[in-house]
Amino acid sequence: MLPFARVSIIGLGLIGSSIARAVGGAMPTVVLTGHDADPGVRETARALKLCDDVADTVGAAVTDADLVILCVPPGVMGAVAESIAADLPPEAVISDVGSSKAAVTAALAVALPMHAIVPAHPVAGTERSGPEAGFAALFHNRWCILTPAEGTPDSAVQQVTAFWERLGAQVEVMDAAHHDLVLAVTSHLPHLIAYTIVGTASDLEGVTQSEVIKYSAGGFRDFTRIAASDPTMWRDVFLTNKDAVLEMLQRFSEDLTALQRAIRWGDGEALFDLFTRTRAIRRSIIEQGQDDDRPDFGRKDH
Amino acid sequence: MLPFARVSIIGLGLIGSSIARAVGGAMPTVVLTGHDADPGVRETARALKLCDDVADTVGAAVTDADLVILCVPPGVMGAVAESIAADLPPEAVISDVGSSKAAVTAALAVALPMHAIVPAHPVAGTERSGPEAGFAALFHNRWCILTPAEGTPDSAVQQVTAFWERLGAQVEVMDAAHHDLVLAVTSHLPHLIAYTIVGTASDLEGVTQSEVIKYSAGGFRDFTRIAASDPTMWRDVFLTNKDAVLEMLQRFSEDLTALQRAIRWGDGEALFDLFTRTRAIRRSIIEQGQDDDRPDFGRKDH
Repeated sequence: MLPFARVSIIGLGLIGSSIARAVGGAMPTVVLTGHDADPGVRETARALKLCDDVADTVGAAVTDADLVILCVPPGVMGAVAESIAADLPPEAVISDVGSSKAAVTAALAVALPMHAIVPAHPVAGTERSGPEAGFAALFHNRWCILTPAEGTPDSAVQQVTAFWERLGAQVEVMDAAHHDLVLAVTSHLPHLIAYTIVGTASDLEGVTQSEVIKYSAGGFRDFTRIAASDPTMWRDVFLTNKDAVLEMLQRFSEDLTALQRAIRWGDGEALFDLFTRTRAIRRSIIEQGQDDDRPDFGRKDH
Repeated sequence: MLPFARVSIIGLGLIGSSIARAVGGAMPTVVLTGHDADPGVRETARALKLCDDVADTVGAAVTDADLVILCVPPGVMGAVAESIAADLPPEAVISDVGSSKAAVTAALAVALPMHAIVPAHPVAGTERSGPEAGFAALFHNRWCILTPAEGTPDSAVQQVTAFWERLGAQVEVMDAAHHDLVLAVTSHLPHLIAYTIVGTASDLEGVTQSEVIKYSAGGFRDFTRIAASDPTMWRDVFLTNKDAVLEMLQRFSEDLTALQRAIRWGDGEALFDLFTRTRAIRRSIIEQGQDDDRPDFGRKDH
């Protein structure tokens, strides 16, 4: 039994197009309709045959759906939900893939007060953007977090759970506020720091930008991958998860100041203790299959 | 013509054992002698046949050498150089692979005032440590920076240049102080930040450590790779390149504070502008062959 028979994907970027490809592989009898606000993306999606049909208007994309997944930046989630309200079948379940959840969940509930809403965040992605960047295996062995609002029927949560499990993900249900705190640490703060350091490096006057690029293999290049992520989406993540991000940033800054002090005063023991402790976390991530165990992520030449 | 006929490698960890493997492949007639202060590492090096001979004392390892490469943490470089002074042939060239150069160059000059010293920093590595972690291709298409002290004979610099080019590296000569500033940005600061954020994440009380590990695919896992690097070496890097690291850390902190302010006041334009600018740096790094162009570094599942 398929959890949904007619699925609409609004927004056909990296995540939306990956869902389309994954549904095509795992649930080929599902009727897939797609839409993107950008006519060029719609054209590409048609050329790639990502969906059974790519609709030219967002309303036409949802008229028959029993699941609608909004794969648009967090900042426009509410507006897009409003724009489908008139055409949405009353029994359709609404979901999304936003990286921040409390603000998005609230925006969806305001826009579509009569619908079952099961917000979702597949914790997966790459630094690429756009419909060509997606691939079916993106969600394999990754976690997808659902943050249903109070009062959401269990049946809808179970259907969305089954949907993501079919795509290869493991599903966890949690409170939206807790999601935002956890992801502020494991995703939002790392992105913020990567964007910052790449900006800092490109502003230095004594070191030319060509030197920064040339000697990036010493560690910097890893940060540039993260700092190549979609600017619109990440702007919206920071603006919609402001409180948790600022809280984590404050803690990070305190810890960095402590380390700065240890360096200034030559406290090698404090440095060594931290650097030893952090190795254990990496081991756990490898053990739980959340990263590639090969040195340097198995980059070429190894 | 081989640049050196008899090479001694002191310290058989990731870098020392990679040099040994690379020399074995690129210059098989070179006589390679190795030594490590750790008897267990010496035993492993013998079992792996990393060198023609693994000497039990550091003195015995250098008696015949025309090139000695010290592959030990920056903090013990001076002491190790002193320990070989009595056994070192007068015409032997001394080099090293330390990640900070001004302090190391000075320490080597004090310990071995009569020798030609050509300090080197191959900008390459992985998060692994120890003799098993090395591999011959580690230096392929990577930069190796030489920071010869004033008065070093050109012939010695040319020999060390030829040596590294044989191992597949591209060589650049620069002033030790400038090296320390450039690498503070492209390597030392990224490591410091990665260590810090992994520490911050493991200290949170509201978020369990298992959640941090579980949802690490959102970006955090990239930092844990860097924060799994060798603790002894990195402690020494920060202590021996204190001034440049503190200067870069100060700039980074200012930039982070500016971003924090933009988030607090909802300045989406400032965020979007930075996030767009940082994408260009990634493109240049890929174009110059300093990183893998596949999404997610080509991690498995893609």
